[in-house]
Amino acid sequence: MVEAVGDDVYLLRPVGRVASPLTDAVSAPRQGDEGAPAAWLVFDAHVERAVRDLRIGAELLVLTWLDRARRDVLAVHPRGDESRPESGVFSTRSPHRPNPIGLHRVRVLAVDGLRIEVADLEALDGTPILDVKPVLGAADER
Amino acid sequence: MVEAVGDDVYLLRPVGRVASPLTDAVSAPRQGDEGAPAAWLVFDAHVERAVRDLRIGAELLVLTWLDRARRDVLAVHPRGDESRPESGVFSTRSPHRPNPIGLHRVRVLAVDGLRIEVADLEALDGTPILDVKPVLGAADER
Repeated sequence: MVEAVGDDVYLLRPVGRVASPLTDAVSAPRQGDEGAPAAWLVFDAHVERAVRDLRIGAELLVLTWLDRARRDVLAVHPRGDESRPESGVFSTRSPHRPNPIGLHRVRVLAVDGLRIEVADLEALDGTPILDVKPVLGAADER
Repeated sequence: MVEAVGDDVYLLRPVGRVASPLTDAVSAPRQGDEGAPAAWLVFDAHVERAVRDLRIGAELLVLTWLDRARRDVLAVHPRGDESRPESGVFSTRSPHRPNPIGLHRVRVLAVDGLRIEVADLEALDGTPILDVKPVLGAADER
């Protein structure tokens, strides 16, 4: 694999993929709390140590690479509604943006080794997973 | 710039940089609500259309590339406290992780063209900015 890139460019290597019944961006919910199904986070074996402390009931933020999004879009009509004025993408949750990183809040339903089932994930089947972080609780519980 | 990379690798191109009085990872707060200072998000001219609707008072999520973090760390003692058991990094907010993407919740204090001042940002001076998203309000306000 060639990895020569210019200055000020960073390489992401996915740590897993989403396995989901959602396969179609048009019919997928726009946010996880708008009717998204349960899905599995399927991690690569090389990150087993990073995954192993995830527990049923944990509230997580999953970061994904929205590999079907466009990177050349800087302004959109929010939620695709052309009656709403166009807005810069940094003021919207459009998937189309210069670095199309998805941010999804989910809850762990089941743990099976490198496979973690989560509720309310609107990412499409096959979406690359970049990172997982716990939702922060109160400052004295960190 | 050479951009030949292998399959399943994605290229991030920063959209700006953080300008902050924080220059030292050791003394920086661990989270934005733990005493972080105000800082400026300084965007590149090519994303002006994406930035232009950010307003004073907006609550934002800023995604950064933690360029001083290690990518080969899969487990850590939470908050560097060796009395706490080691935990997989996906269960912690350690900056050290396979794809070191920082996630920061901030509030806009001032807007000056491509420069946006925000409260409570624990990122170090010079940190590359990847993306900015609004904090989601209630479903009927989206």
